[in-house]
Amino acid sequence: MIQKLIEKIKKTHAPVVVGLDPALSYVPEHLLKKSFGEYGETLEGAADAIWQFNKGIIDSTYDLIPAVKPQIAMYEQFGLRGLEVFQKTVDYCHEKGLVVIGDVKRGDIGSTSAAYATGHLGRVTVGNSQFSTFNEDFITVNPYLGTDGIRPFIDVCKEENKGLFILVKTSNPSSGEFQDRLCDGRPVYEYVGEKVAEWGAMHMGESYSYIGAVVGATYPEAGRVMRKIMPKAFILVPGYGAQGGKGADLVHYFNEDGLGAIVNSSRGIIAAHQQEQYARFGEEHYAEASRQAVLDMIQDIDQALQAVV
Amino acid sequence: MIQKLIEKIKKTHAPVVVGLDPALSYVPEHLLKKSFGEYGETLEGAADAIWQFNKGIIDSTYDLIPAVKPQIAMYEQFGLRGLEVFQKTVDYCHEKGLVVIGDVKRGDIGSTSAAYATGHLGRVTVGNSQFSTFNEDFITVNPYLGTDGIRPFIDVCKEENKGLFILVKTSNPSSGEFQDRLCDGRPVYEYVGEKVAEWGAMHMGESYSYIGAVVGATYPEAGRVMRKIMPKAFILVPGYGAQGGKGADLVHYFNEDGLGAIVNSSRGIIAAHQQEQYARFGEEHYAEASRQAVLDMIQDIDQALQAVV
Repeated sequence: MIQKLIEKIKKTHAPVVVGLDPALSYVPEHLLKKSFGEYGETLEGAADAIWQFNKGIIDSTYDLIPAVKPQIAMYEQFGLRGLEVFQKTVDYCHEKGLVVIGDVKRGDIGSTSAAYATGHLGRVTVGNSQFSTFNEDFITVNPYLGTDGIRPFIDVCKEENKGLFILVKTSNPSSGEFQDRLCDGRPVYEYVGEKVAEWGAMHMGESYSYIGAVVGATYPEAGRVMRKIMPKAFILVPGYGAQGGKGADLVHYFNEDGLGAIVNSSRGIIAAHQQEQYARFGEEHYAEASRQAVLDMIQDIDQALQAVV
Repeated sequence: MIQKLIEKIKKTHAPVVVGLDPALSYVPEHLLKKSFGEYGETLEGAADAIWQFNKGIIDSTYDLIPAVKPQIAMYEQFGLRGLEVFQKTVDYCHEKGLVVIGDVKRGDIGSTSAAYATGHLGRVTVGNSQFSTFNEDFITVNPYLGTDGIRPFIDVCKEENKGLFILVKTSNPSSGEFQDRLCDGRPVYEYVGEKVAEWGAMHMGESYSYIGAVVGATYPEAGRVMRKIMPKAFILVPGYGAQGGKGADLVHYFNEDGLGAIVNSSRGIIAAHQQEQYARFGEEHYAEASRQAVLDMIQDIDQALQAVV
């Protein structure tokens, strides 16, 4: 799967992920009207509106990008109906040939992590049969519990040729509270990054590991350091766009081969129609606004990378 | 909800939580046969077997205990059908008057944590209506992202009179990798505990905060220290029983009022019928074996607490 991700990045010239983190407040009036008309102002209605919204964005951007990153919380808030749409979204993105990074940030003690790994990346055994359920290609994982909480995810990834992005330095304002705390002069996240490199050696692709890391665009200095500590890890970079990260901040997240990082934007793409810059498209053409926002993001990152060559 | 938890602990004389973490391998043959007979060896069949299994344990223990702690991963591994049983289990435990601690270990950047809080503790708004979905009373939360990842959970807890247990020092063998790393001579988990005390002040009950902590039974020295650092926080203590913790290890997790901690056992209770000690009940009477295991656990903890008075 890391090979597929790399091939798709090379083919699209776009180290870019679209974050499918829908909120009802992003969904255009005409879609809400249709779904609420059919199902009422119910969880079913909300779920249908979000599904239609997602489908529009996927249809309008899938040829430009290698991967999507649905944030499961945005679906989980609508309960079972929401999670049904999460699954439908993953399946539909697979139909369109996209790599799917499930942003689930799971992580627990060993036996529990094994269950999460089964549900999101693997296959569950029932009697003599096996079933895959949520079936993402990669998921994000929280490292706070250490190796025995991570290992079961890696075991399933090896069986299924899938991968992980492990939180190292997150993009949010208070990420430093624990992650930046200095131990012998080095922040906690550096120790986490060293472990990611170790864990990554357990499951290598050709040039990169199946085990990557999350380092936020909002902390470019951390990106520069972590690039060196984890040379074989792909870095998933959130925080571009709506959270404040810019293309120029991102150059040090990449290796000299021009690979090694993939930049996520969520709101900046899927709610583009609500931004002044793309207001001209009008709410009905929200998907076209998203497409334009993807094109602009690809160009911004490409220019930043060209500037350092 | 913290008041309800305290009242129920006082009434049952049992600072005990039953961890509803079912696996198909725990489910007795007669239940599997029935569910697979009805639904086949399918996800539906597995989900039904687990639901019947849970129901038996709840029916046979609810009068002895204040609370249950379903581990969502064990349901999530069966996909949507599994999560349906998670929800059914939460609802059924509420019918039986139990406090439900959803062991979900969620945690993300602010806007995403807000969505998790909505789905698990709050109500989601759809048009002019509001719906609660998973509706646990407490959930466990991962602190790695710091205050702005925790704050949205606290906000929803304040609206709904609900609470959190925040991971401080987990029970698993490699929890020390990051949690024990020394910063200025003190382990990371102490800094997390100090934050829990700070966050707890934002949402106080009468004598304890709605914001508690998780400290594993397998690290009793951490329990002793954290008890002092977070005097108003209820401590949820995993790792008793199958993971190796004993009653005698637990005394320092409690305050002098005999409160302040609640001890979880999962496998030790729900798979009691598979242990030599309870084999006499026979697989068909797994629920009675669970009841006996709860009674023994209550006695073990009570004796340990009496010994220090």
